[in-house]
Amino acid sequence: MMVIMKPGHSPQEFDAVMARIREVGLDGHPIVGVERTVIGVVGLDREHPELADDLEVMDGVESTVPISSPFKLCSREFRKHDTIVDVRGVKVGEGTVTVIAGPCAVESPEQVMLAAHAVKARGASMLRGGAFKPRTSPYSFRGMEVEGLKILAAARDETGLPVVTEVMSERSVDAVAQYADVLQVGTRNAQNFFLLEEVARTNKPILLKRGMSSSMQEWLLAAEYILAQGNPNVIMCERGIRTFETAARNTMDINAVPLIKELSHLPIVADPSHGTGKRRLVEPVALGMVAAGADGLILEVHPSPDHALSDGAQSLDFDMFESVMGNVAKVAAAVGKRIESSVPA
Amino acid sequence: MMVIMKPGHSPQEFDAVMARIREVGLDGHPIVGVERTVIGVVGLDREHPELADDLEVMDGVESTVPISSPFKLCSREFRKHDTIVDVRGVKVGEGTVTVIAGPCAVESPEQVMLAAHAVKARGASMLRGGAFKPRTSPYSFRGMEVEGLKILAAARDETGLPVVTEVMSERSVDAVAQYADVLQVGTRNAQNFFLLEEVARTNKPILLKRGMSSSMQEWLLAAEYILAQGNPNVIMCERGIRTFETAARNTMDINAVPLIKELSHLPIVADPSHGTGKRRLVEPVALGMVAAGADGLILEVHPSPDHALSDGAQSLDFDMFESVMGNVAKVAAAVGKRIESSVPA
Amino acid sequence: MMVIMKPGHSPQEFDAVMARIREVGLDGHPIVGVERTVIGVVGLDREHPELADDLEVMDGVESTVPISSPFKLCSREFRKHDTIVDVRGVKVGEGTVTVIAGPCAVESPEQVMLAAHAVKARGASMLRGGAFKPRTSPYSFRGMEVEGLKILAAARDETGLPVVTEVMSERSVDAVAQYADVLQVGTRNAQNFFLLEEVARTNKPILLKRGMSSSMQEWLLAAEYILAQGNPNVIMCERGIRTFETAARNTMDINAVPLIKELSHLPIVADPSHGTGKRRLVEPVALGMVAAGADGLILEVHPSPDHALSDGAQSLDFDMFESVMGNVAKVAAAVGKRIESSVPA
Amino acid sequence: MMVIMKPGHSPQEFDAVMARIREVGLDGHPIVGVERTVIGVVGLDREHPELADDLEVMDGVESTVPISSPFKLCSREFRKHDTIVDVRGVKVGEGTVTVIAGPCAVESPEQVMLAAHAVKARGASMLRGGAFKPRTSPYSFRGMEVEGLKILAAARDETGLPVVTEVMSERSVDAVAQYADVLQVGTRNAQNFFLLEEVARTNKPILLKRGMSSSMQEWLLAAEYILAQGNPNVIMCERGIRTFETAARNTMDINAVPLIKELSHLPIVADPSHGTGKRRLVEPVALGMVAAGADGLILEVHPSPDHALSDGAQSLDFDMFESVMGNVAKVAAAVGKRIESSVPA
Repeated sequence: MMVIMKPGHSPQEFDAVMARIREVGLDGHPIVGVERTVIGVVGLDREHPELADDLEVMDGVESTVPISSPFKLCSREFRKHDTIVDVRGVKVGEGTVTVIAGPCAVESPEQVMLAAHAVKARGASMLRGGAFKPRTSPYSFRGMEVEGLKILAAARDETGLPVVTEVMSERSVDAVAQYADVLQVGTRNAQNFFLLEEVARTNKPILLKRGMSSSMQEWLLAAEYILAQGNPNVIMCERGIRTFETAARNTMDINAVPLIKELSHLPIVADPSHGTGKRRLVEPVALGMVAAGADGLILEVHPSPDHALSDGAQSLDFDMFESVMGNVAKVAAAVGKRIESSVPA
Repeated sequence: MMVIMKPGHSPQEFDAVMARIREVGLDGHPIVGVERTVIGVVGLDREHPELADDLEVMDGVESTVPISSPFKLCSREFRKHDTIVDVRGVKVGEGTVTVIAGPCAVESPEQVMLAAHAVKARGASMLRGGAFKPRTSPYSFRGMEVEGLKILAAARDETGLPVVTEVMSERSVDAVAQYADVLQVGTRNAQNFFLLEEVARTNKPILLKRGMSSSMQEWLLAAEYILAQGNPNVIMCERGIRTFETAARNTMDINAVPLIKELSHLPIVADPSHGTGKRRLVEPVALGMVAAGADGLILEVHPSPDHALSDGAQSLDFDMFESVMGNVAKVAAAVGKRIESSVPA
Repeated sequence: MMVIMKPGHSPQEFDAVMARIREVGLDGHPIVGVERTVIGVVGLDREHPELADDLEVMDGVESTVPISSPFKLCSREFRKHDTIVDVRGVKVGEGTVTVIAGPCAVESPEQVMLAAHAVKARGASMLRGGAFKPRTSPYSFRGMEVEGLKILAAARDETGLPVVTEVMSERSVDAVAQYADVLQVGTRNAQNFFLLEEVARTNKPILLKRGMSSSMQEWLLAAEYILAQGNPNVIMCERGIRTFETAARNTMDINAVPLIKELSHLPIVADPSHGTGKRRLVEPVALGMVAAGADGLILEVHPSPDHALSDGAQSLDFDMFESVMGNVAKVAAAVGKRIESSVPA
Repeated sequence: MMVIMKPGHSPQEFDAVMARIREVGLDGHPIVGVERTVIGVVGLDREHPELADDLEVMDGVESTVPISSPFKLCSREFRKHDTIVDVRGVKVGEGTVTVIAGPCAVESPEQVMLAAHAVKARGASMLRGGAFKPRTSPYSFRGMEVEGLKILAAARDETGLPVVTEVMSERSVDAVAQYADVLQVGTRNAQNFFLLEEVARTNKPILLKRGMSSSMQEWLLAAEYILAQGNPNVIMCERGIRTFETAARNTMDINAVPLIKELSHLPIVADPSHGTGKRRLVEPVALGMVAAGADGLILEVHPSPDHALSDGAQSLDFDMFESVMGNVAKVAAAVGKRIESSVPA
């Protein structure tokens, strides 16, 4: 951390700042410039997360500037090699493109089984489906809950496709962990810190969606909550951010793919269904995210999107999904990858 | 809802849309314009929240436009008169300015008792303080938890000031409800729907902070989750939104005050401490929010802000708080209000 | 500027960075921390605005952090005392609230004269009106142009109210300067640097609207373009920024008022008409901005808002304006000010 | 347009709205719903752009909703086939990927000639370079101006590469048109309507960068300003938007590529250099934008990026550019395209 002193600060103010820095066991190293004096704080300021706030309100201090990154376990510095998350033999992040597909919401055993077989036949290696649905309005369909979990597990047992599903409540973490292979934390819970720790403790792989207004740093700190519980199996998922643009539901942040790879060792997949909210945009954006280096895609596929109980507007039907997969395979090849296909036959 | 058909849609596509509308018991009323045909959906589409999505993916449909507001119980149409929330005799929303003040985080019995007496003496009518602290980093101080709740309750018992404190986890709702008078739902949990329902069921008044990227509509729908549980005692709290501007921590949305009053009957208070993140900005923004019609303020006040364990940079000391209160009283008078002072002596 | 070196950089990389810093006549002062080495650049880096970019791409460099502010002439450090802009005797920034009012667009001599007399009678001290109108669509009414300027000047001559009007084109700067007393640069031209310099050279006072996505720093640098031409008479105007929120046309940034006052010596006025886009929000937001310390207001007032050719939805009629002025006077008094009234009788 | 009446409006208010609609020669068609009455306005409301504002402020009116798109000439409805812009034989938008490359700023004849030969040898078909540079700070290098234009023209004459360069001022449109083949309008002038019309009148192709806070609709309306002058040769350029995320300079909006293709017939290219601001992100984002369907790329390439006078941090050196071109060719092939190579040998 650097402490920037105000022009015209007094020697007493300077001394008080130095004293405060030393009080927590760190050291201060001043640089006297033409317009400003700056104090470099030497030592691990990450271990003193309140120090910056404390210093900023002292007399004579203009501001502080962080130097070290606030996250550690998920940083590229901490671990040079890419993390590969193994989900019942399906590898995420080993240089392939893992496709997770299925309906937005679980609606019936038939719907899920139909979708599971269809997406497997077209190259998906994991099944997604929502048993608990976060809904902006209390009057919307909120999912089949535990019944839905059982349906997903049955589809996994029949097809071999590991199951990814969202957990929204601390109280249902155990139930979800019992049936699912990957626990998804959604965008609205991206900073629900108790939930992050609770899912971490299941030791299951976690698909961590980016908060719709989370910065890279906040998103990585959310991952850090999970890693700090001893669970290293985090898959980051870019799903679009909230901006002024309303022509699509969210703004898909393609920059996030190379940024996460630079800052962290964790794999990152992309969710173009939520990132666009419009079926016609899903394929071009999916291809773009793969070309930019995403380790996988999570796609909404529904046997009959026009009758879906949730997010039909962004779901692909089986024919569209087949077309997307064909083109994903080509773009993956162009960047030296292939679609991950390690699901048991 | 209006359904806007694509130019050049077929009669079959039109008929299919009409059939779908009738399938759910509503009626369609077409208007043929020069460039577009539009179908007005007549009936309560709020009760069919998936219909818009369903229609949008049908062939020949360009888009849908909602007409009725998606929330009901918290709407001004549903209830013409302002809701007044009564907290142990302190009224929020009855045409006064209620000031809730206290430290960001509970640190010790001495700190809280000192702060409680000080803010009461200067005109606050409720005490705030965090026992559970949402922290972006897992390495930050996260609060004294239940011990902190007890300290707050003791301060309430001594001063008579009702206590407002944040609840972050479904698992601690009961504990918080046991000690606190108002349960605060923070910005990071503004769309944690299970938590919203759980706090609602305590029947305690809820201080509902706006999500940092919540639209007016999403924020009111979060309130609707609470009202739909039969708990009408919701206090909206504007605390700044996330924008491109980084000169302050958040962008305080002053427009939100008259907008909420127009759309809803619920009271709204303002949190300039978080809305600015900078102590020097708290007073001018507090005065501005009161002048714009806010029903109250929630302010961070700390006996010794330079040594606070949390958010010291935005906390006022007792002298600054006294000065703010003096000026709030003047601005309140200018808009025909006074500072709420119904706390027991 | 601080240069943050990557962990594990080589001594050669460090030496190359030091050499580059010295190449432009500055000096480097290294601090070796636990995880990072940081080099403080000593000297006036504002005079070497490309140096940061140059350093950032050198091997071994992680990033650079600016320390000095990039603007000089408009900074509070450069000039401690508030700038007071004198417009034909009307003072902006001397501790009063200057109200600039009038129609969005000039439509006829009768409309402007009627409005000018009406706003003067109700306490405004300057007249606003658009002769050149920035319109998002090429198919909208774009103003009466020079004819409109003449109408404004005639209204000024009759009422004594100085005239504020927007200039959108370098080619019309001379014409606007011939008729107007204050040249307004609009939000869409906030970074039209040739226009900024051209208006500066007229030596007329400039009303500089904030760009709809300009940060504080960019806005102040736009002002710096004007001051750097030797024209110190800049009035900053907060008019709302673009955010995700669509319930109002823009998000009025109340934080901007105390921020500009802290960073700069220039006066700042607020435009609640554009900052909200909704007539019903104008009064509460106007009061809020005055309470927060704004030096004035610019308000759209139209004899018959329902028939305005431009922005009728946000214009006040004379009765509403009278009511706003009454309440502005009360709020101004509450913060120790009065409405500026130095216009000739 | 639909006019949504307030619940409880009076028959007189309804009649007044209908009268106003008929006053401008359109017709109103009411639909009486359960909670709201809506009036469909039948006729070309695009020709009455002020009508919506007028109606919105009438008593009894809640809001209006546009139905027809506000732009016409650049809409997909107006012209079904893709526009192909021909720049001295280089085709943009005919199903290839056109690469425009060169230094951010023109610094010397040697620099430009070196870069021109290098980018041509590696597959670029147009040369970019800034003679006039928009700079946030008045103290930054602002370009070689007309001297720079001559240098670019000389490079074009020697290599055959058509020249793309920015024009920032109405006063320099003629000079830029004399030397350049494509006139670029930058992000800060995206709503400088006088400049848009002036460049349109040169009849040269225009590269229209998206404003950093322009919505799709505003960006297309800016194009409409050009097309309305009779100049159909507009190339849209996505260059990133301003959001809350600061880890990259801008947020590259990948959704914009399929959205523009759906809404308009104009070609769209991508600028990953400005869209990311970081050299390391340029390649992955360039590949992603091509995979998503962009008709071309504009890339900053500098003989010696570490010594560039402008934006060195995002410029590629020749080796990096060669690598990018190799991978762009592969990704282009994966989506059924090739790199445009029609530049004369």
